[in-house]
Amino acid sequence: MADTDPQTTKNVLFIMCDQLRFDYLGCAGHARLETPNIDALARRGVRFSRAYVQSPVCGPSRMSFYTGRYMRSHGSNWNNFPLRVGEPTLGEHLKRLGVRNVLVGKTHMKADDEGMARLGIDPNSIIGVEAAQCGFEPYERDDGLHPTRPGADRPRYDGYLAAEGYAGPNPWEDFANSGEAADGTRQNGWLLAHGDKPARVSDEQSETPYMTRRAMDFIREARADGRPWCLHLSYIKPHWPYIAPAPYHDMFGPDDVQPAIRSERERQDPHPVYGAFMDLRVSRNFAREEVRRRVIPAYMGLIKQIDDQLGLLFRFLDEEGLSGSTMIVFTSDHGDYLGDHWLGEKDLFHEMSVKVPLIIADPAPEADAARGTVSDVLVEAIDLAATFIDYFGGTVPRHIVEGRSLTPHLQGQRVDNWRSFVVSEYDYSMQDVRTTLKRDVSDCRLFMLFDGRFKYIHAPGFRPMLYDLDADPHEFRDLGGDPGYEAERARLKDLLLGWALTDHNRITMPDARIAAYGPATQLKSGILIGYWDEAEVERARRQYGL
Amino acid sequence: MADTDPQTTKNVLFIMCDQLRFDYLGCAGHARLETPNIDALARRGVRFSRAYVQSPVCGPSRMSFYTGRYMRSHGSNWNNFPLRVGEPTLGEHLKRLGVRNVLVGKTHMKADDEGMARLGIDPNSIIGVEAAQCGFEPYERDDGLHPTRPGADRPRYDGYLAAEGYAGPNPWEDFANSGEAADGTRQNGWLLAHGDKPARVSDEQSETPYMTRRAMDFIREARADGRPWCLHLSYIKPHWPYIAPAPYHDMFGPDDVQPAIRSERERQDPHPVYGAFMDLRVSRNFAREEVRRRVIPAYMGLIKQIDDQLGLLFRFLDEEGLSGSTMIVFTSDHGDYLGDHWLGEKDLFHEMSVKVPLIIADPAPEADAARGTVSDVLVEAIDLAATFIDYFGGTVPRHIVEGRSLTPHLQGQRVDNWRSFVVSEYDYSMQDVRTTLKRDVSDCRLFMLFDGRFKYIHAPGFRPMLYDLDADPHEFRDLGGDPGYEAERARLKDLLLGWALTDHNRITMPDARIAAYGPATQLKSGILIGYWDEAEVERARRQYGL
Repeated sequence: MADTDPQTTKNVLFIMCDQLRFDYLGCAGHARLETPNIDALARRGVRFSRAYVQSPVCGPSRMSFYTGRYMRSHGSNWNNFPLRVGEPTLGEHLKRLGVRNVLVGKTHMKADDEGMARLGIDPNSIIGVEAAQCGFEPYERDDGLHPTRPGADRPRYDGYLAAEGYAGPNPWEDFANSGEAADGTRQNGWLLAHGDKPARVSDEQSETPYMTRRAMDFIREARADGRPWCLHLSYIKPHWPYIAPAPYHDMFGPDDVQPAIRSERERQDPHPVYGAFMDLRVSRNFAREEVRRRVIPAYMGLIKQIDDQLGLLFRFLDEEGLSGSTMIVFTSDHGDYLGDHWLGEKDLFHEMSVKVPLIIADPAPEADAARGTVSDVLVEAIDLAATFIDYFGGTVPRHIVEGRSLTPHLQGQRVDNWRSFVVSEYDYSMQDVRTTLKRDVSDCRLFMLFDGRFKYIHAPGFRPMLYDLDADPHEFRDLGGDPGYEAERARLKDLLLGWALTDHNRITMPDARIAAYGPATQLKSGILIGYWDEAEVERARRQYGL
Repeated sequence: MADTDPQTTKNVLFIMCDQLRFDYLGCAGHARLETPNIDALARRGVRFSRAYVQSPVCGPSRMSFYTGRYMRSHGSNWNNFPLRVGEPTLGEHLKRLGVRNVLVGKTHMKADDEGMARLGIDPNSIIGVEAAQCGFEPYERDDGLHPTRPGADRPRYDGYLAAEGYAGPNPWEDFANSGEAADGTRQNGWLLAHGDKPARVSDEQSETPYMTRRAMDFIREARADGRPWCLHLSYIKPHWPYIAPAPYHDMFGPDDVQPAIRSERERQDPHPVYGAFMDLRVSRNFAREEVRRRVIPAYMGLIKQIDDQLGLLFRFLDEEGLSGSTMIVFTSDHGDYLGDHWLGEKDLFHEMSVKVPLIIADPAPEADAARGTVSDVLVEAIDLAATFIDYFGGTVPRHIVEGRSLTPHLQGQRVDNWRSFVVSEYDYSMQDVRTTLKRDVSDCRLFMLFDGRFKYIHAPGFRPMLYDLDADPHEFRDLGGDPGYEAERARLKDLLLGWALTDHNRITMPDARIAAYGPATQLKSGILIGYWDEAEVERARRQYGL
């Protein structure tokens, strides 16, 4: 047969949810939410309990996942900040290894149209599409948020809904993401008050199952092509609009909502930036129990739906004979406060925002020893790009990719020189907070450094924040101004300085080429620096064996 | 006539020397070297007495001049580290203003061939040449170092010399940059011992006059084109090979050599990095008086030749009627230790290495008040790109160009919020020092921060260096380990952290677009974040006037 043997072709199925908290999974200990399929994946692989994103908001977090580089390196600081043309992507690294990097779902990539035009890159050429799609072959691109905007492209999913009988200019909004009242009237799905309503499409017609089927479509089609692939199945859910289709919309109720993780002391004289975020509309609403009890059941339903779909997808991989050759990764681009710490959305660095679920099941026999274990090593989102390059047999170009391969951890190996802290960044210039705090756009930055115990948040223009997660796992006590922790803060600030001063842009010159250069290279090239006379040159030639 | 009126077209003549110390000019107070033409330029404009390069070595310093961005931003850390494709250059900013950015001489630009291939950019297309030439229209590119290497392109200057009768595979090396002994034999010009010999070409045939003539050629040709230009006349001299043609080779003698600026205390237990640099061959040689007395007269002769040539060039501009419309800038890419501080070459941050001469003569009437003055404001090399954009009527895109326009200083204005420190960086991974100190290639970094009094040098892996230039203008006393200066060091380190954490890569999103974004923008776009119900949306619409 023309197909290659699936057993000999390695693949990666890189599943990402959007806005899924690390603790809303059965295997992570949620009290009411059962996720048997994701839990089964965890038993087949390693669950990383301390995985942090490089920025707790979609755009920059994803650009870090897709480039293996920190936000300050890729420069796409917020949603829809174009990724500069030429910024090397995971897709380009994989392409060199003969691997297709394919997208089904969301990337939040904004193309650098101006940069492409400047360099004369045709957006319709193969290179142009790659550059515009962040290194992905867009089998199906769908960023998942499609309000009605004049002239905006409608996603392929809209066409699907139309074919299913959902007419109108925006079936995504009017049906898939609207709720239906008992009297049949449409309820605006963007509004939190409607979180308890069912979507106006069936489970099968809703986005998560649709994208799952599209992933299957790709996997089937890829057999004929034969090349190995890294498929990014990137769900928009459980991101808002918080609207689930039946039966998920009422699978959970207000009684399943866990108590908010928050303390009154947090509202007493908070750090100015934290205080300004608490004062945002979304935070003020999520601080109300009524809102939490309306929205969180829908959030849980959407996760349950993902788990059910993943059950189907994993069975499909088994049937296709691909499970033994496909690394499966499950993660999220950031979390969701859901009212914890008096906040809504994400953006700041408390655990439920910046920490994400991460499960990796590597089918290789070398990984057998670690199956079903939980690893608490400090992981950064940028490690995935490095892991994938490594998995496909490449060498991680460390002058470009700043993450590190997780392979040794997948094999249960102890790594002595593993990183001792993780870093995450946030640019709040696009938030109301900038205006409230009267900050210049270039001054709205936050930097988190977490060493496994202390979480230090550097806030230029303000005092830092500091949490001791050993003594205060819920992060209620901000020690950022506590005189007793001055030495600790100085130590963490020094680590941050070290991190900030590492190369972020020396992407054209591999380490190995530098290491190979020396005075002999120079002498051979005919450039004689600082030699006094012929005799000295002769001595040097002999010394270098030239 | 077809020519545009030169009086109405603004131009910039951007003259750069290579390796010219700030203090080897008459106007800067040199005791023996007279530079009447450069001094006259200083009388027509402003001489900046505290101008610092972004890295004291050719490649990265120039990439900063030509992009207006710090080394850590452009990522070209050392000579021949390719400038990443897509890195925005001065040339591109000027192009948008209808200004030609033209090169005669050296840039040390190494094209990112791999990046260009990755993006499908044809190196022979206009865009490809611009990308490969750092945004310059290469009227005559000549990097000035042309050892005999198999297969290497020979510069146009070689053809000129051949036409003048200098035969052979490498007339650049064999004639223009070789000395001639009294018996007529060729003396290797790369060697310091031959610094007292005349070059084997005449003054007129040597590189500085040749490049000056080429600049005149361009200026003449540009009349017909009519567009305004920024001409970068970039001399290789007084950079080594330290060989001057007659009569400049013996215009100065050993008695004209100024005493070395150095102290025995510097050799007692120096900072490890400084110590390793002192131990380089070039430093050991320049520490010898014999070497200084042989080489420095040639260095002075080469400067004298430049001054004479600039006299011709300035007269030519007068004759062409361009002096009233052309801003003239005179500077260098870094200095030369010449044995000071027991060092040769450049690379470190003592004044004679990292500080450069900078004279700017702006013909505008607004600049009349400041003519002939000396400004001691803290200037960075990256300010020139901003100044030129400003001069041609553009707005400095501050999310890309990190320098600031010097225009107010050229007009004698007081600027209250001017920068309070300058930063320079150095990557010593390409130096023997890396091996001596057993450092990993990515750990070989130095960062200088100078606030006008204290020069703080952060050296990851080592203690910092610190000099108080008020108390110790010659920088003999390293206070980097002095317990009495701990608070000072902490203050300077905090400034460095602030600098390191500013955006260096957010080049796709202008500040103004961020500033214009707000909750009203979001609501208008149809994305409703955190609203509870219809009534709340209605209230917001009214509030925002939608």
